[in-house]
Order: sequence, then C-alpha cells, then structure tokens
Amino acid sequence: MKRLIKNGILVDSDGQYAQDLLIENGIICQRAANIEPGADCEIIDASGCYVMPGGIDVHTHFNIDVGIARSCDDFFTGTRAAACGGTTTIIDHMGFGPAGCNLHHQLHLYHQYAAGNAVIDYGFHGVIQHINDGILDEMAGMVHDEGISSFKLYLTYHYKVSDAEVLRALWQLRRVGALTTVHPENDAAIAFRRSALVAAGKTAPIHHAQSRPLECEAEAIGRMINLARLADNAPLYIVHLSNGLGLDYLRLARQRQQPVWVETCPQYLLLNEQCYLREDGAKYILSPPLRNQQELDRLWLGIADGSIDTVATDHCSFPYHQRLALAAGDFTRCPNGLPGVENRMLLLFSHGVMSGRISPSRFVALTSGNPARLFGLWPRKGNLNLGADADVVMIDPRQSTVINHRQLHDNADYSPYEGFHCQGALVLTLCRGEIVARNGEFTGQQGYGQFLRRRPFDSQITAKMG
Amino acid sequence: MKRLIKNGILVDSDGQYAQDLLIENGIICQRAANIEPGADCEIIDASGCYVMPGGIDVHTHFNIDVGIARSCDDFFTGTRAAACGGTTTIIDHMGFGPAGCNLHHQLHLYHQYAAGNAVIDYGFHGVIQHINDGILDEMAGMVHDEGISSFKLYLTYHYKVSDAEVLRALWQLRRVGALTTVHPENDAAIAFRRSALVAAGKTAPIHHAQSRPLECEAEAIGRMINLARLADNAPLYIVHLSNGLGLDYLRLARQRQQPVWVETCPQYLLLNEQCYLREDGAKYILSPPLRNQQELDRLWLGIADGSIDTVATDHCSFPYHQRLALAAGDFTRCPNGLPGVENRMLLLFSHGVMSGRISPSRFVALTSGNPARLFGLWPRKGNLNLGADADVVMIDPRQSTVINHRQLHDNADYSPYEGFHCQGALVLTLCRGEIVARNGEFTGQQGYGQFLRRRPFDSQITAKMG
Amino acid sequence: MKRLIKNGILVDSDGQYAQDLLIENGIICQRAANIEPGADCEIIDASGCYVMPGGIDVHTHFNIDVGIARSCDDFFTGTRAAACGGTTTIIDHMGFGPAGCNLHHQLHLYHQYAAGNAVIDYGFHGVIQHINDGILDEMAGMVHDEGISSFKLYLTYHYKVSDAEVLRALWQLRRVGALTTVHPENDAAIAFRRSALVAAGKTAPIHHAQSRPLECEAEAIGRMINLARLADNAPLYIVHLSNGLGLDYLRLARQRQQPVWVETCPQYLLLNEQCYLREDGAKYILSPPLRNQQELDRLWLGIADGSIDTVATDHCSFPYHQRLALAAGDFTRCPNGLPGVENRMLLLFSHGVMSGRISPSRFVALTSGNPARLFGLWPRKGNLNLGADADVVMIDPRQSTVINHRQLHDNADYSPYEGFHCQGALVLTLCRGEIVARNGEFTGQQGYGQFLRRRPFDSQITAKMG
Amino acid sequence: MKRLIKNGILVDSDGQYAQDLLIENGIICQRAANIEPGADCEIIDASGCYVMPGGIDVHTHFNIDVGIARSCDDFFTGTRAAACGGTTTIIDHMGFGPAGCNLHHQLHLYHQYAAGNAVIDYGFHGVIQHINDGILDEMAGMVHDEGISSFKLYLTYHYKVSDAEVLRALWQLRRVGALTTVHPENDAAIAFRRSALVAAGKTAPIHHAQSRPLECEAEAIGRMINLARLADNAPLYIVHLSNGLGLDYLRLARQRQQPVWVETCPQYLLLNEQCYLREDGAKYILSPPLRNQQELDRLWLGIADGSIDTVATDHCSFPYHQRLALAAGDFTRCPNGLPGVENRMLLLFSHGVMSGRISPSRFVALTSGNPARLFGLWPRKGNLNLGADADVVMIDPRQSTVINHRQLHDNADYSPYEGFHCQGALVLTLCRGEIVARNGEFTGQQGYGQFLRRRPFDSQITAKMG
Repeated sequence: MKRLIKNGILVDSDGQYAQDLLIENGIICQRAANIEPGADCEIIDASGCYVMPGGIDVHTHFNIDVGIARSCDDFFTGTRAAACGGTTTIIDHMGFGPAGCNLHHQLHLYHQYAAGNAVIDYGFHGVIQHINDGILDEMAGMVHDEGISSFKLYLTYHYKVSDAEVLRALWQLRRVGALTTVHPENDAAIAFRRSALVAAGKTAPIHHAQSRPLECEAEAIGRMINLARLADNAPLYIVHLSNGLGLDYLRLARQRQQPVWVETCPQYLLLNEQCYLREDGAKYILSPPLRNQQELDRLWLGIADGSIDTVATDHCSFPYHQRLALAAGDFTRCPNGLPGVENRMLLLFSHGVMSGRISPSRFVALTSGNPARLFGLWPRKGNLNLGADADVVMIDPRQSTVINHRQLHDNADYSPYEGFHCQGALVLTLCRGEIVARNGEFTGQQGYGQFLRRRPFDSQITAKMG
Repeated sequence: MKRLIKNGILVDSDGQYAQDLLIENGIICQRAANIEPGADCEIIDASGCYVMPGGIDVHTHFNIDVGIARSCDDFFTGTRAAACGGTTTIIDHMGFGPAGCNLHHQLHLYHQYAAGNAVIDYGFHGVIQHINDGILDEMAGMVHDEGISSFKLYLTYHYKVSDAEVLRALWQLRRVGALTTVHPENDAAIAFRRSALVAAGKTAPIHHAQSRPLECEAEAIGRMINLARLADNAPLYIVHLSNGLGLDYLRLARQRQQPVWVETCPQYLLLNEQCYLREDGAKYILSPPLRNQQELDRLWLGIADGSIDTVATDHCSFPYHQRLALAAGDFTRCPNGLPGVENRMLLLFSHGVMSGRISPSRFVALTSGNPARLFGLWPRKGNLNLGADADVVMIDPRQSTVINHRQLHDNADYSPYEGFHCQGALVLTLCRGEIVARNGEFTGQQGYGQFLRRRPFDSQITAKMG
Repeated sequence: MKRLIKNGILVDSDGQYAQDLLIENGIICQRAANIEPGADCEIIDASGCYVMPGGIDVHTHFNIDVGIARSCDDFFTGTRAAACGGTTTIIDHMGFGPAGCNLHHQLHLYHQYAAGNAVIDYGFHGVIQHINDGILDEMAGMVHDEGISSFKLYLTYHYKVSDAEVLRALWQLRRVGALTTVHPENDAAIAFRRSALVAAGKTAPIHHAQSRPLECEAEAIGRMINLARLADNAPLYIVHLSNGLGLDYLRLARQRQQPVWVETCPQYLLLNEQCYLREDGAKYILSPPLRNQQELDRLWLGIADGSIDTVATDHCSFPYHQRLALAAGDFTRCPNGLPGVENRMLLLFSHGVMSGRISPSRFVALTSGNPARLFGLWPRKGNLNLGADADVVMIDPRQSTVINHRQLHDNADYSPYEGFHCQGALVLTLCRGEIVARNGEFTGQQGYGQFLRRRPFDSQITAKMG
Repeated sequence: MKRLIKNGILVDSDGQYAQDLLIENGIICQRAANIEPGADCEIIDASGCYVMPGGIDVHTHFNIDVGIARSCDDFFTGTRAAACGGTTTIIDHMGFGPAGCNLHHQLHLYHQYAAGNAVIDYGFHGVIQHINDGILDEMAGMVHDEGISSFKLYLTYHYKVSDAEVLRALWQLRRVGALTTVHPENDAAIAFRRSALVAAGKTAPIHHAQSRPLECEAEAIGRMINLARLADNAPLYIVHLSNGLGLDYLRLARQRQQPVWVETCPQYLLLNEQCYLREDGAKYILSPPLRNQQELDRLWLGIADGSIDTVATDHCSFPYHQRLALAAGDFTRCPNGLPGVENRMLLLFSHGVMSGRISPSRFVALTSGNPARLFGLWPRKGNLNLGADADVVMIDPRQSTVINHRQLHDNADYSPYEGFHCQGALVLTLCRGEIVARNGEFTGQQGYGQFLRRRPFDSQITAKMG
C-alpha cells in the first residue's frame, strides 16, 4: 500500500519545504510539490502541520535492573510510549549483567527482551562493566558482526573505570570504529560529599542534589575530553549534560577541532532544583540531579547556538510509590531515574521552536538527524530523503497540549512534567510507513519493531551535523 | 518617632545578616542582632521576610510628551505605583522640550511637575536634544549647581545626534563629572527596514519588531562603547538592553577595563516576540522591541553572571485604548512604551531569586545598590548602612502573588504582565522611615517625595559595584 | 611542454600528500604518487620541499594615485615582486578616479595599466567612490559582464559613505552576486582625535597611531557587521584587520552564523607600535596603524584558530625619501601604505608554520585556498586539483632567508621587514606552468599575466573554506 | 645608614609616580616627591630608571634531590643568581624526604640548607608526599607555628595523590588557613603515552614533549579546579602553566567567582617546542614541556589581560653535561628542570613592558605584588609603601642586555635563554636596604637572607591583586 502525505511543511535538518511525501513499502519513494496520488493510495492531509523525521531517542533504559529495583518499563510499554510521543527509533543501554560477564552476555539478553515486544525500531549501546584484554578483544566483533557501534563508560557507580582503563577503552573503540559515550561524574567527589551529608543526617531529596554538585559532572567532562584527545583523538559523546560549565569545556574542545558531542534531556532544560523542595521531591531523584535555573538558561543557549547536539530522555522509570517505599526519606536508597520517553518531542517543540529559540530544522537535527549520524543509522534514519525509512512525525503547531500522566503510555505512575502546557500537538507517527500513533493514541502492534544493525562510526557523516 | 524592624533577614549587596534595623528621623541609626526597642518605638515584625534597601528605578518617563501623545502617568500616579511596588526612589528623564531649548528649560518644567506630587524621592536625568557650544557650556552648572549628574543621548528619533556630536558630548560630560547614558539604536537602519515594510503594507505589531531587529541596537551599543573609549575613556551607561549580542560587546569592553555599565528591564527578561502575534499585540509596542526567547535566555545569564548592572523599568505608559485609536493597525503611528514601574521588584525577585538564578544580595545590587552608586545617590541611598535614608522594602518569600492590573496603581488600563504568577509578596515599603505602602496598598502622601541633588559621577564608588 | 614536480610534499587546504604533479599546457593534469615522466617532460626535483598552490594576494594598490602622491609600483614592478615572493595571482583595487566618475571609468583605466605589464594573473576589485542610483544600476553589469565580483567601501577618507548608503550598497551587491569589502575606520573619531593632536603640535609618526586607536577600527567593524546583517544578511569581507577587538566582534557574528570574513596582513602580525618610535618611524605610516604587541598576539591566535580567513599585503608603496619630503615631520602629510607584496608568503610560512602555530594546510588556506573561494577564482585557482591552473610555489623548509631590500623586486627604497630572519626559502614559482621565479630571482616575462574574469560570489563555495 | 633613591619613576601595582624613596634601617620610611637628603644619607640617582619592588620568585628548587640527581644550585648560588637578576625573595619547595616522612622532617632539613647561605630573604612551601591523618593533623602547626602557609600537591611522579586524597588535603588546608598549590599533570595519561613511545624506540628530546601533551596538563587543571570547588571552595594556585587550554579552564572558574590563581614561567612564554629539535635539545627537558608557539601566544594574552597572576621560574638546574651523561639519548632518564632564576625580571620587562603588552604596574603585580599577597608576605613585601622592607630593583629601560651564561651567577653550565636580546638593564638590587647586586654583579653577603614566617592565606588581601 502507498501513503501520500499532502499539504504539509516538510522539515529536515537543512530547511523547510512545501512538499508532499509518497511512501511505498515503508520507504520514502517520492518527495516533491503537489504529488498526484495514484490508485490504492491513502492520502493523509497535513495542512498546517510540520512533517518531520520520526524522533530518535538514543538514551533509554528499558528492563534495566539497578540492583535495588528493576525499571517498570520494558520494551513493549517503553516503545509504546515512545511511539505515542513521536519517536520511531530508540537506542537502549543494555543494562548491567553479572559481575565479570562479557559484552555478548547482555547482547543476547537484550535481544530476548526486545524481540517480539518493541513497537518501533531499536538498537543497543554496549555497556562497559570492566576493562581487560578479553573485553577489548570482543569490541571489534560487537561493532562489525553485531551492529553495536557505540559503548558506554561509567565514571561512578559500581562499574566505574579508572583513567588508565578509560584510555585503553577509548583507544580501542576508536580503532574498531565505535563511538565512546560516557556518564561523567567524579566518583570520589560524590563519596566525599555524600558521606558528609549522611553523617549530618541530611538525606532529603534536596541533599541528593547537594551530594553531586555540578562540579562533579563538569570535572568528569573535562577529564574525558582530554583523555579522548590523548587516546589518538578518539570520538567522544557525553550523555545527559545538566550544566553550563561542562558545556563550556566542550565548546573549548570544539574550538580546537576535537570530535566531541553532547546530549541533554528535557528534564535538564525544564525542571530546576526547586523541585526537590516540593513535597513530592523524591519524584525527581536522578543523576546528575536537577540544577538551578541559571544552568537551565545556559543549556538553552547551547540548544540555540549549536553547542548541544542531541536531546534524548534517559528514560528510566521507577514508580513514585516504589521510590517512597525504598527510600523511606533517604535519598541514598532511592533508585535514580525519570520517565519521559513520551514527552521529549513535544516539550522541545513547544519550548524550543514555538518560543523562538530554535528553528524547526534545528529541532529535527536535535531529535533525529544528529542522533542518526552519530550512531550509525544515517542515511536510513533521521531524514526524509528518498530511500530512507518512512519514519515520520506530524506536529500541528496551532493546537496545544497539557501533559497529564493518565494519558501517557508508560508504566510509571507519574510524569515529572505533569501540568506542563505545550504549544503544539502530535498528530501522527509513522514507523516504516505504518501508523503507530494518532493524536496521542497508540495504533501500532507489539513486536513490529526491528533490531537495527548500526554502521560503524563515520567522521564523514558526522561532519555534516546540523 | 522610631521604628524597629525585627527578626528579618537583612540583605545588602554584600550578604545576608540576621539583624534588626532601628530607624529614627527617617535615618538608619542602628543595625545589629537583637536590638532592644526603647520607648516610643514602633516594632515591625519581619519574621521570615527579607529586609532590603528600597528599590531605585533609574528609568521612568512621567509626564512625557512624545508628540503624538502624552504619557498617562504623572509624578503622583507614577510614584504611587512605584511605592506600592517596593521602589522608594526614581530618576526620571526630563522629556522633550521645544526644539532648540536649553538644558535648564526642562529642568524648571520638571521641578514643577514633580514638586508637590511625588510620593517618594526623585531625581532627573538631563536629556540632550542637540549639541552646540551653549549646551556644552551649560553642563557643568547642571552637574554642580543643580544636582543633575547624568545625561541621555538618543541615536534615533528626532533628537538623534551624530558621531561627531556624541564625541563632543562624551568628552565634555566626563570632564564635568557626569555619566553619559544612551538610547542605542541605529537610525539609518531602522529607516531602511521600516520603509521596506511600510511599502509592502506590513504594519502590524510584529512588523514593529521586524523594523528594528536586534542588530539595530547591537550596532549602536558597539559604536557607543568605542566612541566613549576614544573620548578619553568617558564613563558610559547603556539603557534598556534587550539583546545578547549587545551584551557580548559590553563584556568585551569590560575585559579591556572600560568603564561601561548596562541596564535591562523586566519586559526584556520576561516577554518575548510572540506577544506581537497576540490579538492585543499593540500593548507591547516599545523600542527596542521584545525579542525572541533566545535573547531573553542570554539576558538572564547576564543577570546571573554579573554582566548586567541594573534593572529599571522604562515606565512610559499609554493606555491600550489610546494605542488602538492612534495606531489604527499601523505600528508606525502607535506611541512606544510600556507601564511597569510597580512590577519590577517582585518580578525580579520571583524569577531571579526564587528560581535560583541569583542571590538576594545580587538582587539588591541590581535594584538599588548599583543604581545608587552609578547615579550619585550613594551612600545616602542603595544600602542599609548607618546614616543612610531609611528606604526599606520587605518581601515575604513564602507568599505568592498574581499580577492583576486592577490592583495596580498607575494610570494605564492594562499590565503587560497580567496573570503572571510571582513567588513572593511585597509586604511593606518605607521611604525615609515612613510607611508608603503596605501589602500592595498605598499608604503614603502626595508631595512627600524630595528632589535628590545627585553627586557627580565617582569612579571610586562604582569600583565596588555588586 | 610538460613539467613534472617529483618527490615533494604536496599541500592543499585539506592535507599533505606524498604525490607528484604533472603539468601540461599550464594545467595540472595528473597528481599521484610516483608519476613516471614521459618524453619531453622537464623534471623538477622537489625533494624535501613543500609544493603548494601559488599565492593569491587579494589586496594590492598598484599605480594608485592618492592625491598627494602616486604609488611607485605599477603592474610590472608590483607583479614581478609578487612572483618572486611566491604569489601567482593578485587582485588590485582600481584606485580612485575623478570625483563622480562611474565604476566603468576605472575599469577601463586599470585594464590599460595591467595589460602588457603584469607578469602573473590579475583581477580587479571595484571601488565605490559614491552611491547613487546610477552606481547601483551599474553593479550587475560589472559582476556579470566584466568579471568584477567584489567591491570596496571606505568609511573614512574622501570617499567615505554614510550608513544609509552602506545599506543600499550591501543590499544591491548581495542581489547581484558580489562580495562587499570594506576599509573600516570611523571617520568622525579620527577627525576628533587628529584635530586635538595637531592642535597640540603632536605630529610625529607615533601620533599617527594615536590619531586612530584600535577603537576607530573596531567600531567600524562592529557597525559593518550589523549593517550587513540588516541588509538581508549580505556577505561581508573586512580588509586589513589590525586588532583583536574587531576580531572578537567577527567571532560573535560567526557564532550567529553570519557570512563574514576577514583578512589581515603580515605587517599587523609582525610589526608593532614601537616602530613609530624609531628614527625611521615614517617608514611605517599606514592605516590602520601598527598596534601594540598584545594586539599582534591576538591576531596570531586568530590565524591559528581559524577566525582569520586570508592574509594579503595591502601593498601600497611610497619610497622613504618621498615620505620624508612630503611629510616633513608631520604625519598628516605623509602618504599611507607599505610595500610587502614580495614578503607575504615566506613571512607567514616562517612565523606561522615553522614556529608551530599553523599547519602547512592552514597556510595554503590563508594564502590561496580561501582567497580563491571568496573572490570567484575557485576551482581554477587556489588548489592543486586536476584541471586547475598550474600555479605552484615550492618552499624549502630547511633553508633560511634574511630579508634585505636590495634583493627585492619592487620599486620602493626600503622594506619594513629589513633584517627579518625567516626559516624557509622560496625555491620556485610557476604561473600557469611557466617558471616565473627561481630562488628569489625573476624569470618571467612582462605581459604574461592574464586578466581573470571572476565568478559571482557563491556561498556554496565559501562554505568549504579551510 | 640611610639611602635616598632620587629622580626615578616609582612603580607599584597601582601606578607610576615621580617620587623619591628614603630608606632607613632596611625599611621604607618616606616616599614623596623631591625628598631632601639629610646628613649621613647615601644618594642613589635613578634618573630615567624605573624603581620597583624587588622581585619575589615563589617557585624555586634549590638543593633538591630528584633521585637520579641533585640540583646543582644550593641556597647560596641560587639566591646569588636571584639577587643579580633583581629578585629579593624566593620561596623554595622543600624537596622530597624519605618515603613516609612527616612535614616537619623537610622543614628542619631546609632550615639547615638555607641558614647561613641565602643572600636574600626566603620562605618554604610545604610539599605533600602522602596523605594520612598524621599529615593532616600536622598542617595547622606548620601554618601557625612555623610560618609555612602554602603546600604543594603532585598529581604525577612518585608522590602523586588520588582524587580522594586531594579532596581531604584541600579541605584541611583551607580550614587551617593555607593555600594549596599543585603540579597538574595526569599521571595515567603520561604513562599511557610514554610507554607507547618507549616501545617504539622514540626517546629523543622531542618525544619528551610528545609523552605529555598539553591535554595531560589541562586535564589536571580542570580536575583540580572542580575538586577545590567541591572541597568547600578551597583556594587553589596552579604552578607553571604552559598552555592556553588550562588557562581557559581557569578563566571559566573565575567567571563563577572561584578563588583560583595561576603562575607561569618565562620558559613557557619565550621558548617553544622547536627547541627540542635542536642538537642541544636535552637542555630543555622539563615538565610540563615546552609547547608550540600558539600556546605561547595564548599565555601572553593571559599575561596581558590579567588572567595570569604571577611569573615565577621553577628554577631547578642540572648541568647540560650531567643531562647528557644521565640521559644518554633517552628522555625518560634525563632529570627535568631548567635554570632561570636570574633571568625572570629582565625577560618579562623586555618582552612584556617594552613591547607594549603590559604596563610597568602590571609587571610589578606579576613579579612581586601578587606573589606577596598570595603567599602571606604582604604588606611587608611586594610594595613600596611606608614600613615595607626596602626591597628594591632599579631597571634602566634605555639600556639593552644580551643574555650570556658566562655572566650569570648560578651553578649550571648553560642558559636556556643564551643570546636573547633584552631591552632594559638591571641596574641595582636592594634587599632590606642593602645593595646586593649592581649592574649584574653580586655585591651581597652569604647568609644575609632571613627566613620569612609567612602569614596565613587571607582572602581580603588577595581580593586586591593587580
């Protein structure tokens, strides 16, 4: 069957166009002004709407077990929520396996989690739990045989790696064609701060923020930038940036032509530290924590001036009732993470595009074009060019939306954005030509999603990011 | 009579203190922890409240005649609104007199306007309508005999001055101990843009913004900075900054140790260009115009990082019905300006302090300490030190306020901030020890305000700005 | 005849290559490792040498009449010196014609000056002496019929134009496909400063510098940047940058994606204000003047970090004896300008590449690649790709050179770089395949140079500048 | 006896003054224009000379034993060279003691080294070889009883400390009133780079530089800045900065009001990486290594714009013949360090002041005023105010000097600045009123120098740095 999207404003990373889009067999097969529908062609009227590449969320944690709890979203509920929020591809972190397990261990497990469940397409990031010769040797196969072309390092938590190990990992990952991503927080500094707070009986949600001030994160960002440079200029991707100082370090690296990129998340753009003072402050415990408004302002400038490359969600949901039960008022016992995979596209559209901070094209670059280029999905995903998958989201800028968790599709019991007013509404989401959501309601099918073998990191492709 | 303000958190530009404040004869005569009230002493309980220097608004236009209309606020209604909004001193621009008139002409007129009307203290800025030897000769007397130690230049409108005239003015004003202030917009560029818009029939409120993009303003700021440097490093004060590019130019000047300062206004921090697309867009026509949200973000960073020195209002009110009648849909015929003298303190307190962007001390620096230092009112105003006038504002951070024009005290028929939620509430305003407003209600007296002979500009005093 | 350059290190804007270069009919016809010479092929051994595109100097003033004097170099002596210095193309400014003359007047004159004289290829920049409808109408023909795709505005001197005129010129030049270049200095400020100095009897060479401090230039740069933005984002090229503040303004413009570029000259990188205190200080009078060493440091950073796009010479020579005679100790009577067309390549190679500030590729970008892209000569000039003109310079980095005016080929009687030690030596210059200089000696032919019809400005081409 | 310095230009951190200076009992007892000499008063004619506070070099390593070698300068030869170079106070690092020794161990030893030998005044920095409770407990006594108010941490070499230890040290040193100084290089990164070079047989002097690129240093600077912030905003001083990226990190910290300061050395301003390619490259092996010219340019801007606070020497001399013998062509076996204590003042005067980069006042701030404020010597040292020690250096800007090791006074056998031309000459050095050097010749006395008990770190005093 064919589908023709007519009368909309097509947007890609480069510009806006008054063009129609013809889809056949899940592929974009024509893109031009005033396409005539042939026989057997469903017509979708997009008058007044933006027609854009479906969102790519490169930072989710479905099925993850963090030791004290397991996330309440799996590949079905998580991707269902994503689809309803305009996202057609996710790249998930493959959780943590038993101590000492190799990289393939989690890969097998996550293929089982996702297959038959995901409603949109998906890939996986490798997660480094430790570094030794075996792990380093395994990397080439993961990239070239399994389609896993990005790996994540942690500098804190149980699986933190030392500087010497970071250097080995960066060097090897660059050599095998993978992008190194990192959770940047200084472990020793967090321990130093937290032990002082705990000793003083300070364990409320606001103390979570005080236990890991922005300098914990900025330090680790500065460190990783320099280690990457020293490891033969290995490409580096910083996840979930929450502060402006780290962003300034990244800007300096780019001025020296270093291949570094950075992601932020809606929570770091829209929620500030004051949330921890609310009665339900435990809802907002995540790492890095929410910051004061000054840092939010700084991040928005990075969104506007091109310093920030992608917006993802770090969706990792634990219900509020579970948080309360586990934490019992002590932030050190509360699982970290927020839901949000369904809200990313509309929040950024409303507060980014509609308020005049960014253009629709920059919105596309942040939510799909750049993620596709960085993570080996380009040119199949992240654009509306001929031959690309027909992953499409339609947004109507004339409608408005109020976020209400009861209308969302994840398994959490709250939204951190409850009550937020958004200018714009998600009208339609297509994944490989199939309509998977309409007006915020799920219309897809469990198991429709395909695993994406991602291509190795390619600096020619990232050179053209928007 | 004495008044003792007890149990509050005293704030000045340097820090916060758990101190009481004793007032006698309108002067601060003691400031210490736990002052014992003597006999005949009214006690004001400030528990849980910030006790700060009364606001100084250095940019108002009362009684101004702009040719096509006269502002609807005079020195009574204007200062009454100011007092209810926590402001205890204003410095007004002395309007425009008949073509060719000298500086004293307007001074006499404005003394008549203000005397017997103002409910709080006031001073005047000189306004340069033209430059010639007579005007230059008059300046020394204005500063030293009349207490007018700042003068304003316009680079657009009828009274624009050329670069050669600017240089003469800057050089002479520096010599006589005055601070040069400037309305910076490039006149030729506005004319170039506006004529094209008008020729195309584009005269809606949004076209007002398009007729003077931020580059019109940034150009003039860059020009003035360099001319001031060339005129023997004359001190310079930029009024109503609305964009981040101009701010970047100012930062560069400061890095080279140049004596430049800059003011912004709440409208440029809180209202963006989208307002012009509203049905009542004509309410927001002012110059420079409102900008897109990216510029607002940039200004907030300047507020937070110390690059912006003062927040004033540029209160210049024309009722909405009058705007509609005069403009009849054509922005070129609409008088420019917004009301707002009553909202400055609370808006900045809520969006600056309570959101975590700035400290209470920085709030004081922006709203009274810095204005007093720059405009020759220090040490009498702008602080809570012994011997200073007992100008005090009490803010309760636990209450919240919704702005509603019907509760405001100016003569306009609308507020540009209608419906804004503010965290905090103005509890009390004292001017020279007298309570002029309580819980947003006026309790002062017409004519109570005194003219302030301001001291010459003093670089020793500005060296310690906060 | 064919020529084969063997065993050298080929350098272009993108990288370095161990490749040979085969030239036939003045065109590059092969570029590969180990090319076998065929019959009738002259072999040039470039072992140990860099083989780079011949230099393009886009800022010369041959034959110019500045009223009080005529430059001592014409198209023969000027281009002969250029060729000996490794430059194979110059773009000259077409001097000043009689008041009120149209654009074609000077074009005819300069064709006469150059034809039969130039020893290397050449183009012309249009020079705007005044703006009116006739001039604006003439522009399209100049670009499309005559191959003149860049025009220069002056903001000082006799032919200065007002802001309103600048806006008209920028708008029209953008429309017809031309690049606007500008001599940026604030005329009113120079007059203000100079009249004070002259009144005080301060007319020595150092007072020339004091009469036009860097803020005169920075102001005009800031102004032009903003006017260009307001004139429909017209492309803009700043000539002979001498200070870091102007460079910072340009960096800010680029951060906002504005199409602006900037040139500096060896004298602003290597000679500082102390020169004016020497006995022969009059040798260094030019505008803008030499600056203090801090500004030189700032420009070098711009060379290194990519903020500066081109290095040209502004060669405009008046012999020292003539300067002394005309000026008689009064800087206001001394013609402005320096020789230097022969020294550009080697000075930048030595102080840029050999000191470790820039790579050989960046050297090529600055001296030929970027100029060719900006001024409509790409892809014929500025690279070593197949089909390009065989304009080549060979530099031996192992030799060293001391600059001595007696060995130079211009008509001046001094070099501002007398005695400078350079690491590196110019071995060979080829223009369209012919050897025009060897080891610093001229081997070319008067009249060999061809006029270059330059293509319209093309933002696709400038997007790939190095 | 009294001494009167007449007719000079007095310079301090604030300005220049045409004043005379009267010295009695080693103390400045009058400072005024045209002081009349009384009886028994030696008159020193300073016509045409700058009269400035004697230099304070806060970074020397006399008598140090680095394991493979002992520095060839002791407190006699080292301070003798300092005195001849215009320096009247040094603060030495107390070398390394036996593993596990406490802080007092080295203090006793260094008192023995210095007493009876030093010809000018001296203090000591504590050196942290390891962190444990005993060391932390010892710190308060070192500061308050022994006058040791600064301590140095190493992040590389044998005595490197971990992040957790750094945090403990910073926190404790702040608490006891000491300034933490740090040698910032990332140990793991150096090991990673060096092992690869050694494995490839790359052990020439240039490979020393390649084994510790600027990112090794910048990383550690960024890390220390953030750890200091997290340790209760502890004051931090970075030694021997050699690159611009670290300086940019420091600028960002200052923009956020953090108390951080930084020192550079003449070798990092004047010698670039090319030195390692010379035949005598081993002369220049030190850590951090020399950088490329771009970094030197960046440091000079920091000198000019106020971002760099002090210039010291890191004098640590090993003769060239010893270097060659020990290294035998392998940089990993060569002792690190350069002589230079005698050249600091004149090099910075010539290349800083005389070239127009900095004012004479800024020169004083960098070489004595700021060091005195940071290291607890103010107000006794670092200025020419009444009551201060009469430590004075006289520089004649009209003379010039060529550096020649045979005329220097240290025990090394070469100078890294051999053949450097300096504009200016050192005419006279007084230490506590006694003439210790005249025209580059030593006129002092072994053992004249006094130990300086330094005051605790005081943020009021550092707030006024120049």
